[in-house]
Amino acid sequence: MGLPTETEERVRYSETDQMGVAHNKSYFEWFEIGRTEFCRKKGLPYSEIEARGFYLVVVEALCRYRRPLRYDQTFLIRTTMREASSRKIIFDYEILTKEDLGLVASGYTVHIPTNARGEVSPVPAAILGKISAE
Amino acid sequence: MGLPTETEERVRYSETDQMGVAHNKSYFEWFEIGRTEFCRKKGLPYSEIEARGFYLVVVEALCRYRRPLRYDQTFLIRTTMREASSRKIIFDYEILTKEDLGLVASGYTVHIPTNARGEVSPVPAAILGKISAE
Amino acid sequence: MGLPTETEERVRYSETDQMGVAHNKSYFEWFEIGRTEFCRKKGLPYSEIEARGFYLVVVEALCRYRRPLRYDQTFLIRTTMREASSRKIIFDYEILTKEDLGLVASGYTVHIPTNARGEVSPVPAAILGKISAE
Amino acid sequence: MGLPTETEERVRYSETDQMGVAHNKSYFEWFEIGRTEFCRKKGLPYSEIEARGFYLVVVEALCRYRRPLRYDQTFLIRTTMREASSRKIIFDYEILTKEDLGLVASGYTVHIPTNARGEVSPVPAAILGKISAE
Repeated sequence: MGLPTETEERVRYSETDQMGVAHNKSYFEWFEIGRTEFCRKKGLPYSEIEARGFYLVVVEALCRYRRPLRYDQTFLIRTTMREASSRKIIFDYEILTKEDLGLVASGYTVHIPTNARGEVSPVPAAILGKISAE
Repeated sequence: MGLPTETEERVRYSETDQMGVAHNKSYFEWFEIGRTEFCRKKGLPYSEIEARGFYLVVVEALCRYRRPLRYDQTFLIRTTMREASSRKIIFDYEILTKEDLGLVASGYTVHIPTNARGEVSPVPAAILGKISAE
Repeated sequence: MGLPTETEERVRYSETDQMGVAHNKSYFEWFEIGRTEFCRKKGLPYSEIEARGFYLVVVEALCRYRRPLRYDQTFLIRTTMREASSRKIIFDYEILTKEDLGLVASGYTVHIPTNARGEVSPVPAAILGKISAE
Repeated sequence: MGLPTETEERVRYSETDQMGVAHNKSYFEWFEIGRTEFCRKKGLPYSEIEARGFYLVVVEALCRYRRPLRYDQTFLIRTTMREASSRKIIFDYEILTKEDLGLVASGYTVHIPTNARGEVSPVPAAILGKISAE
């Protein structure tokens, strides 16, 4: 489903914890940045998907942490789409140090499309085709 | 406008930063917990105010930090209402250590009531009377 | 490894997102509150484990989201220890609505003990015995 | 004290709240990004200031919110140094929409230099000269 999208970010001071490294919850915010950029690069910003009445609700999220990131370190969020059907979308992510592309963490999120009332609502082919295009 | 409301909380690990203390942004989340509890104790949960179509938008927020809080420390959020009119509401806050009631931080938030479209919308007397009652 | 620990929390306004529900990252902060309370109830606060020079670094975290939580909803964090050895500790979590004990989410975190320099460092039997006691 | 530093950011989904706009606490994280970039552009990354044993502890923070920012909107953080002495540093910030440079919010943070133990510790002239240079 196309090449991975890469987004560059820096660890914010507010993302560190008293262990001196980026806190485990921050990675899930970074995954979200990754899929936002993924959709934008496919030509369909996620804000537009919501504007059309569809929400890609997270039903499962996993992260494996290999090595820590510190304040102000630059890293890449590499995002790929593993699976895309009208009823389920799965994104895979890798977090890499910018300096040497060392693997910091990897993970995935599973999404079920719903409408604004939170009811399962299959994504139309027009949207699906766009975000899953090569 | 009545006695202050006191709410007890503990510093979460995710609220610390690499300096080993609660991060400055967390205090604004705690102020929000304080005004949530203030409204609830007046008999009008903030969720109900929003359900009636009013939003108390923050237009100014200040915090003065006196001494740090550490992970797992218990603290009190003491909330008072300084001013309440149909067009402006001001809350004052103090953060105190639970152990010895030492002043950790103090601050305030200024709110303008709006409707769901973000337009200024005076709070009806019924709502105002309830949250500003002695 | 003993009975589950239950901790009661409320969804903060700052934990909601524009979908009107608690954001997926918040659950990982709640899991952390859960294991903090778990250790405290075993008589060994996590802050004391760190004071002894041991850090339970998160190497994997997963959450499955069943149904949303809204602002100000009260929920329980039910925490159990699935596995505990000197080199690996696994916690399981359930998030339940307080009202009807409905399952909102479930997940786990895997931890590797390290020293302050981030090197793997087996947890002494004294610590392990305490937090894994029935 | 020199030209302002400008940093570009986008509103993250996790930074929105159920009002559909960026939450008030996020602005204080953005201010922090602003001063991080300010120090970097002066040739003295804040991480290096901490590596030399100095911490610029926040003792006061204020934000005035003029208009909301929405998910995925691009904005600029404009940071200037208002005051810099060995015992107190004040930064001013403006948040502007990228599109039309409309003022979204403005604020400031006051910092007292401390050592790693949290004791007030005047910043040496070498550090001060660098970050306050024209």
